[in-house]
Amino acid sequence: MSRRSRDKQSWEVRASTLARNTHNLIRGIVENLQVEPNPNKELIALSVGDPTTFGNLNPPEQVLQSVRESIQWHTSRGYAPVTGHLEARQAVAEYSAHQGPISPENVILCSGCSHALELAITVLADSGQNVLVPRPGFMIYKTVAEGLGIRIKFYDLLPHKQWEVDLEDLESQIDDDTAAIVVINPSNPCGSVYRKEHLCDIINIASRNHIPIIADEIYEHFVFSGHEFVAMSALSQDVPILTCGGLTKRFLVPGWRMGWLIVHDRHNILGKEIVKGLHNVASKILGPCTLIQRALPSILKNTPQSFFDEVVLFIENQAKLAYEELRRVPGLRPIMPQGAMYMMIEIKMSMFPKFENELKFVERMVSEQSVFCLPGKCFCYPNYMRIVLTVPEDILREACQRISLFCKENITSREKMREFESSEMAVQKDTKVICEDIPTIA
Amino acid sequence: MSRRSRDKQSWEVRASTLARNTHNLIRGIVENLQVEPNPNKELIALSVGDPTTFGNLNPPEQVLQSVRESIQWHTSRGYAPVTGHLEARQAVAEYSAHQGPISPENVILCSGCSHALELAITVLADSGQNVLVPRPGFMIYKTVAEGLGIRIKFYDLLPHKQWEVDLEDLESQIDDDTAAIVVINPSNPCGSVYRKEHLCDIINIASRNHIPIIADEIYEHFVFSGHEFVAMSALSQDVPILTCGGLTKRFLVPGWRMGWLIVHDRHNILGKEIVKGLHNVASKILGPCTLIQRALPSILKNTPQSFFDEVVLFIENQAKLAYEELRRVPGLRPIMPQGAMYMMIEIKMSMFPKFENELKFVERMVSEQSVFCLPGKCFCYPNYMRIVLTVPEDILREACQRISLFCKENITSREKMREFESSEMAVQKDTKVICEDIPTIA
Repeated sequence: MSRRSRDKQSWEVRASTLARNTHNLIRGIVENLQVEPNPNKELIALSVGDPTTFGNLNPPEQVLQSVRESIQWHTSRGYAPVTGHLEARQAVAEYSAHQGPISPENVILCSGCSHALELAITVLADSGQNVLVPRPGFMIYKTVAEGLGIRIKFYDLLPHKQWEVDLEDLESQIDDDTAAIVVINPSNPCGSVYRKEHLCDIINIASRNHIPIIADEIYEHFVFSGHEFVAMSALSQDVPILTCGGLTKRFLVPGWRMGWLIVHDRHNILGKEIVKGLHNVASKILGPCTLIQRALPSILKNTPQSFFDEVVLFIENQAKLAYEELRRVPGLRPIMPQGAMYMMIEIKMSMFPKFENELKFVERMVSEQSVFCLPGKCFCYPNYMRIVLTVPEDILREACQRISLFCKENITSREKMREFESSEMAVQKDTKVICEDIPTIA
Repeated sequence: MSRRSRDKQSWEVRASTLARNTHNLIRGIVENLQVEPNPNKELIALSVGDPTTFGNLNPPEQVLQSVRESIQWHTSRGYAPVTGHLEARQAVAEYSAHQGPISPENVILCSGCSHALELAITVLADSGQNVLVPRPGFMIYKTVAEGLGIRIKFYDLLPHKQWEVDLEDLESQIDDDTAAIVVINPSNPCGSVYRKEHLCDIINIASRNHIPIIADEIYEHFVFSGHEFVAMSALSQDVPILTCGGLTKRFLVPGWRMGWLIVHDRHNILGKEIVKGLHNVASKILGPCTLIQRALPSILKNTPQSFFDEVVLFIENQAKLAYEELRRVPGLRPIMPQGAMYMMIEIKMSMFPKFENELKFVERMVSEQSVFCLPGKCFCYPNYMRIVLTVPEDILREACQRISLFCKENITSREKMREFESSEMAVQKDTKVICEDIPTIA
């Protein structure tokens, strides 16, 4: 009866290699931490990059109203084309005009920016090839790539140069198997915003090595005063750029999973194969919720600039507040961000020799002070921790005070302490950061 | 300056093997058809498996109201856990109690049922292994698998036995590399609903060969009078079953991309590795829109049974209408479905020798009669076509008349025609399908 050569005697079901090699770095690290908060202090989580957690930052009424209206339409319930409804893609193309000329055919709506990044990496890189990503950097690239046998290679950012790319290191990492360079600007976790000239330097490296760029610009326009956001695609002559973005952060609706990928390929270097490949891979899950797709044109056109300005001003003021508080703390060196919604803080581990590494440092800070910051290891960058700046002002202030107390109580020697104090005097002299009034965001 | 061994002289960007091997079968076929409708007749598309297309079938007011309420909550905007919000998973577990005991930990919310199926296949099967899928069958499995180097092997359904599984064929397809068996019940495209005994026969084959089952039950409860839907997981003793479902069809909101995967593993055969693997792979895109996740408990609990009953009765009556019309058409043999929302129709190609295959048949039917049915090739099953039954009654009636006209005009010989007529007399004698009044669904 049977042609089969098989006669398994017992159950033995293993997860696929892909599943075993797909790891969420942050979750893996956080789940293994001993984070039992001090029962006498309420936990303050400065770890989650979700601006909606505390309820202090909300999308404007127009955004909610657009979705309410969308509910009425029966066209907001049916399947969309693989790349999303045309009107929604047109709206994204117009909204993204600062990136350069965009045809709606080159826009793919995705289930969040993560999905856009997954598409970009999956289509550009083959098993055995590699993708260059910044260190420190958000590690979704690693999660996506490694399960498929795509290697992640790091290029360094320079903490003492406002996290600019170490251009020499970037170029030295390129090899025959490099399929793409990921650039995150503004940066998670660093909060850096690159100058136009610096972006051109990166593009030049990509150009002379003939490597396409994946521009993770989910924090586009999220820049503090005195800085300017420039889209990579607006600067590129020949280098094809796949720009990933979405509603997520700017419209304060990360859970809605409304992202997009835009193909910039003005010299037609990618040919049809890449766009076709993106469509093929996108067809596996059929993109984001059509209720949001239908609301998208109205959301993108009718949200007032004042809303964005208020949110950014709030975060900028939070950054100043945290910077002012934390730069006075012995053993810490915060790096003032220029945008996005995070701050990286160096932990001078030599001043805390009782902690083996920054993981132990953040663990103990939870158990003593009930403040949880994300350890640098989550961004492949030890000796640092990242805090989110979107929490309410009073909570951020309280958190900074507890972090300060923790450091003072755990620093090892009075000598080191004094050493810090004299260096801090120097800092105060040459830094003028003014803490403005912090507006309440509705 | 550079350590690199690479000096590519020109641009050459190719899509990855995965992207090149990922194909949407239906789209590929439909895009290559010459489907220019007759300009004098309005196009009737009986091809798209989307019950919302014509606006005649809509979700009940409770469902829309649940989402309206969800918009107000700031918790409907933030990130959810990788597997979805606990309350939503609990609601799915309760709603799915007919499948057996379910813990919310074994529920993963997905971006539509396609995503659930992708997770199941990706985690159970390795490159080089194979997954057994029914022929004819919905081909998302093929789209998902082949890009990853997972082979699809078909087992046959029997058109003359109401599309039951050819059990002998199923077992003969199993080999050392078989990682899972996919069972679609109720079936897209066949509309078959399997008896309990038949499902047990399938499970027994899986059991003695130690192969887990992926149960595609997106059409659960979609069964016509006289038939019963039984969940595979309710019947399995030892075989681990990954059941894929969602709001999509039953609640008439396919575009909302709200699906789920439920792991049934009462004998703990899968161990922790598979569930962990599912979580890992799910973490790449973070599941469905949280606006819908937050509304899910209310949607699942408050939708009245009368709504489901009305929808199913409407489709059943449409099935009867189409069956009655089409079984009289020379050269066609419709197979009356028992559930879901489709009907498969055999095209007796020998009676249409001027058409090389069923693709040419459906092409010509578009150009002459402006009626588009999906060719069997889309389900790897030539000589058949599939129609959807969710279109409004008058449109379905008009479509059937045009199909009839097309067949009469294109059938080759009067002899064949007469041959058909005498066989049709025989059919009429032993079939009693009564066309009841068709209710209007709000």
